Amino acid sequence: MDQKFMKRAIELSKKGIGYTSPNPLVGAVIVKDGTIIGEGYHEVYGSHHAEVNAFKNATEDVTGATMYVTLEPCSHYGKTPPCADLIVKKKIKEVVIALKDPNPLVSGRGIKILEDNGIKVTTGILESECRKVNEIFLHYITKGTPFCILKTAMTLDGKIATKTGHSKWITGDSSRKHVHKLRHQVSAIMVGIDTVIEDNPLLTTRLEKQDGRDPIRVIVDTTARIPLDANVLSNDSSAATIIATTERAPKDKIELLKDRGADVIVTRLKNNRVDLQDLLNQLGERKIDSVLIEGGSTLNYSLLQEGLIHKVMTYIAPKLIGGSTAKTPVGGQGVSTMDEALHLQDIQVSHFDEDIMIEGYIKHTVKED
Amino acid sequence: MDQKFMKRAIELSKKGIGYTSPNPLVGAVIVKDGTIIGEGYHEVYGSHHAEVNAFKNATEDVTGATMYVTLEPCSHYGKTPPCADLIVKKKIKEVVIALKDPNPLVSGRGIKILEDNGIKVTTGILESECRKVNEIFLHYITKGTPFCILKTAMTLDGKIATKTGHSKWITGDSSRKHVHKLRHQVSAIMVGIDTVIEDNPLLTTRLEKQDGRDPIRVIVDTTARIPLDANVLSNDSSAATIIATTERAPKDKIELLKDRGADVIVTRLKNNRVDLQDLLNQLGERKIDSVLIEGGSTLNYSLLQEGLIHKVMTYIAPKLIGGSTAKTPVGGQGVSTMDEALHLQDIQVSHFDEDIMIEGYIKHTVKED
Repeated sequence: MDQKFMKRAIELSKKGIGYTSPNPLVGAVIVKDGTIIGEGYHEVYGSHHAEVNAFKNATEDVTGATMYVTLEPCSHYGKTPPCADLIVKKKIKEVVIALKDPNPLVSGRGIKILEDNGIKVTTGILESECRKVNEIFLHYITKGTPFCILKTAMTLDGKIATKTGHSKWITGDSSRKHVHKLRHQVSAIMVGIDTVIEDNPLLTTRLEKQDGRDPIRVIVDTTARIPLDANVLSNDSSAATIIATTERAPKDKIELLKDRGADVIVTRLKNNRVDLQDLLNQLGERKIDSVLIEGGSTLNYSLLQEGLIHKVMTYIAPKLIGGSTAKTPVGGQGVSTMDEALHLQDIQVSHFDEDIMIEGYIKHTVKED
Repeated sequence: MDQKFMKRAIELSKKGIGYTSPNPLVGAVIVKDGTIIGEGYHEVYGSHHAEVNAFKNATEDVTGATMYVTLEPCSHYGKTPPCADLIVKKKIKEVVIALKDPNPLVSGRGIKILEDNGIKVTTGILESECRKVNEIFLHYITKGTPFCILKTAMTLDGKIATKTGHSKWITGDSSRKHVHKLRHQVSAIMVGIDTVIEDNPLLTTRLEKQDGRDPIRVIVDTTARIPLDANVLSNDSSAATIIATTERAPKDKIELLKDRGADVIVTRLKNNRVDLQDLLNQLGERKIDSVLIEGGSTLNYSLLQEGLIHKVMTYIAPKLIGGSTAKTPVGGQGVSTMDEALHLQDIQVSHFDEDIMIEGYIKHTVKED
């Protein structure tokens, strides 16, 4: 029973995907006599919490009811008053929670307020499912740097383009639509300058049935080689474009980029290039909680090699194109022996028409034999 | 009801996998009053047909019973007398058939014998499932050349080895065991000479619980560069090793190879290399009905490019190794634009522990946009 209502609360929480960053996705359900009498979720950053919305939407008196909420109710005055106090005031009898507050400074405080007021509290129901839904928030709140998702698309023989660089299209419609949904869900999208020069992408979110939110576009460009007429510098998108560069970039080019409306981040140098860890730190300071990395293969390798990628999503098209010089998803130097490979865990496979998408999380533990 | 018993017949037929080549896999079930009273399958090339075995194993009188058989009963005297006559003699009342005989010269003759003797015949039950089980036989009986399966194993970033050529191991135990089952199922296994020189593989079947049948090993070696101490030339395996070479090979080397017990096939030259179509024709003449191609990437490309591959099986390990110079499953020249890609169809995904295996069939029709 607990699971059924918590599932519903998680489902509600997902309606906030793409709008609550850098806050969590939270859903709440109020149940009386086995029936849902109120539902709510955190709809958009800065607005009401899920609990408040559930009370607002309640169709009858909530006194003595049970509340299912995916995250521990807050105990502090932020943009809204503490939800724990509200729950007490509304005379809720029992609260079922999926996940405790991940912030160690406040974790357990909301629960304490509830229990001190005689409310029965259960925690840990569908916790792992809820963790997955909030993987971006949970990472960002504890590390302060963005959760980095490496997205690649390749043929079944491991190529991201033909030998001539042609890549339109590797995957089918359905996969590409899913990528646009991902773009809507993350704060930022990152590519290397070679991708901009070769493909001149828009890097916007193009959804069919929904207004997509464009991610902030981050171009890694050590010497500011980006052409001033690149699509990512056009003003059609409401999202900012960040040029991540270094002291190696000509000062006047940086000024020209700023004139074009770009936001320029100058990072430290590492191996004579943009220091990616420094860049992610600076992005984190700007409240960017998540970055979708869309290549090319050199940037992908650098990020992986420095341990900066958390999740990998690989779309595979059932096509073969051959070519010993065609590019693969991850280039760069590469490892020498198989025991140096980066392993993924918690593998999931999805299907998008003919395409197969494999996703997993980088194992950052000791490497296996 | 028909489906249930035909499913059982198909299941039985699969017990012959690896032993019936170049004959089909056939299973038969005799049913009386809704109960199975006899089962049989074609166990090994040259021995009893499935129908004969089912009669032999029947536990009661088969008069008036129904027989479910995956392939049309034969009408000719081959190594055994015609099964259609036997079915008539045994007074079977009804015969349910998955697949008509694919040989146009005799197709329908078995059915005619049955019907002429008042037996009710139904065909086409679970036909497509049965076609898949017999894909090798159905190809070989109609074309006379082997059914070619391209097997590759790669990382999730599309590599078949690290930049230094290290490839032990890309995939896990479970995938590798499955490959040994494949080797047991096919008549021959084929690799390029570079794979022999670099990896010195055994190319035998190593199964845990079962005596594996080694496939005939075919090495594509235009100038007979193979070292005389290569593992594939050792005599530990009961299966022959064929060196496919050309007039470019030194005559004395060919003699030395024959002395070592190798079977040497000299093919025509095509682009100054082994003519692969000619080679497959010659293998077909030797009753080799199926070839598992295990690389490397140049041979894979040549076969694909000449339209000689029918099925592709790609094992993907959830690992990343990087390396812009690391080899991919299909090398060679490669296509220029994505619309020249070879497409696969009837895609299936299987899991072997952490690894994912994607299989499909090459679409040999007009290319799509």
